[in-house]
Amino acid sequence: MEGVTFLGMGSFGTSLGILLAKNQCKVTIWGRNDKEVEEVKATRVNNRYLPEVEIPKDVLITSDIKEAIRDSEYIVLAVPSYAIRSVCKLISKELNEKQILISIAKGIEEGTNLRLSQVIKDEAPLNPVVVLTGPSHAEEVSRNIPTAVVVSSADMKYAYKVQDLFMTKYFRVYTNDDIIGTEIGGAVKNIIALTCGICDGLGYGDNTRAALMTRGMSEIVKIGTLLGGKKETFYGLTGMGDLIVTCTSLHSRNRRAGIQIGKGVPIKEACENIGMVVEGISACDAFYKLKEKLNVCMPIVDELYQILFKNKDIKDAAHSLMSRDRKNEIH
Amino acid sequence: MEGVTFLGMGSFGTSLGILLAKNQCKVTIWGRNDKEVEEVKATRVNNRYLPEVEIPKDVLITSDIKEAIRDSEYIVLAVPSYAIRSVCKLISKELNEKQILISIAKGIEEGTNLRLSQVIKDEAPLNPVVVLTGPSHAEEVSRNIPTAVVVSSADMKYAYKVQDLFMTKYFRVYTNDDIIGTEIGGAVKNIIALTCGICDGLGYGDNTRAALMTRGMSEIVKIGTLLGGKKETFYGLTGMGDLIVTCTSLHSRNRRAGIQIGKGVPIKEACENIGMVVEGISACDAFYKLKEKLNVCMPIVDELYQILFKNKDIKDAAHSLMSRDRKNEIH
Repeated sequence: MEGVTFLGMGSFGTSLGILLAKNQCKVTIWGRNDKEVEEVKATRVNNRYLPEVEIPKDVLITSDIKEAIRDSEYIVLAVPSYAIRSVCKLISKELNEKQILISIAKGIEEGTNLRLSQVIKDEAPLNPVVVLTGPSHAEEVSRNIPTAVVVSSADMKYAYKVQDLFMTKYFRVYTNDDIIGTEIGGAVKNIIALTCGICDGLGYGDNTRAALMTRGMSEIVKIGTLLGGKKETFYGLTGMGDLIVTCTSLHSRNRRAGIQIGKGVPIKEACENIGMVVEGISACDAFYKLKEKLNVCMPIVDELYQILFKNKDIKDAAHSLMSRDRKNEIH
Repeated sequence: MEGVTFLGMGSFGTSLGILLAKNQCKVTIWGRNDKEVEEVKATRVNNRYLPEVEIPKDVLITSDIKEAIRDSEYIVLAVPSYAIRSVCKLISKELNEKQILISIAKGIEEGTNLRLSQVIKDEAPLNPVVVLTGPSHAEEVSRNIPTAVVVSSADMKYAYKVQDLFMTKYFRVYTNDDIIGTEIGGAVKNIIALTCGICDGLGYGDNTRAALMTRGMSEIVKIGTLLGGKKETFYGLTGMGDLIVTCTSLHSRNRRAGIQIGKGVPIKEACENIGMVVEGISACDAFYKLKEKLNVCMPIVDELYQILFKNKDIKDAAHSLMSRDRKNEIH
């Protein structure tokens, strides 16, 4: 029986923990907050993030991080992207080199622009790191809705191990040896989701959203390949697949923030209303700066940046996009 | 003032006719059915296909096909794919070589598996042919919702002319010199839309749909490039863009047919309920045969074919897809 520890009690980590517990693993879930941990232990339900699903009673729930990781072959970093570094610092001295670290958050580190696997390597340089990402609402994973995700690693032998670990009849895991593309794909789709939300908020339609997603992907592929990712990866589960799930569902906080902004709610207020980190905003800032440095034409990122950081009127931005010079689709 | 004639009174053609009439063109709409033509002439509304939009009074509406095409520089074939050949036959003797024929239907010809521009060339070999396609619900085009489409032609100078003709503040036209990919992209997306509908009917979720669309695109790209199309085209407005609009909207009859099939309605009955051609079914048949001939691995097309033509149980088909061997995402 393999031991897997989830650090964090978010919805996606919890749903994966339940999946693995049913898949014959010895699962531990660690939470930072004593009170929340006690409540989940008592009720066997994660009321805050995954309220409708029971956590099997053989899952150990604890707030003692040393105990949590001691005997596990796999440690899943199931915290938001901004907390990855601090949680790695908490465990770095306790790790043994054989423990495989799994990153399931999406985003890039603010300030450093590092991919999350790079942040983990910074703090735990001797441990193998595997990324698991793709279109996967936690609530659907927990209901055994068929789902497909992708895993990647700098050393693919660890990706194959993680593929074997998670694969079930309802949860299909593909491998991809392009870890750069896999992580960037998951981060940038939030920029496009935010833009799509704005257009929805403006009352634009299905045509507009499809055009934005398609032309947005074309921008992502341009810069993502310059950063070392493969085109095919961005058009796979981590980029396009995750974008589709994000832009067509109200579960996405990036899209929901966009809808409010499109309806005229001030940006800061929209973020406060969502009550969680809107990763598309910092991703837009990071990719705007990267595109300026690398001199890449990215009109959608340009206009979103002007809206978010330069107070540009939303309709003027939409008009700028529609009235650009006549273009060939591919170049 | 350029003259543009629309042959057919469907929703997309009518919405484009109204767009061009407002864009300073001399527009004619031809319909085969005298009674319908008289009704539209009298009410200035296409009640059957585009009920909520007024047709400007300077648009000529007629059932006389010779009169309709006589003075027009552009002739838009605005009939369903199965009627393209018969309408071309009706006009072939009246055409002059300078008249540019524009194809806006999606699909491939049953029996011959020809792309629609090839069918048109068969019947009107001396005339330039331009394809216009992409994610564009007619009803949204007629409401000036921002929309982006793509045009292509064997001789791109005609594509540029059509780009200029249609471009407005709300309707953005890209060019693409890959006419094979442009047409195949529009045809095959219906196969995936039908499959997505089936999964929706089964009660599967956003994760499933995103996975199917992504893995479906990967199959399309494999066979589409073997048939001479470019990968980038399939990931553009005609393939991915149109797929997004189709799979996320209830306007799509392919998706609606799929939903009924997924709920257990017999296939023939589902098609009758839709009351229009479900192009994904014949496209699945055509592409299944092509993939067998070309020896391409296309598991989604395989399973859909088994469901549609070999009476395979839908849940068994879904199970087969989820329990295939472990795979790398890209190969």
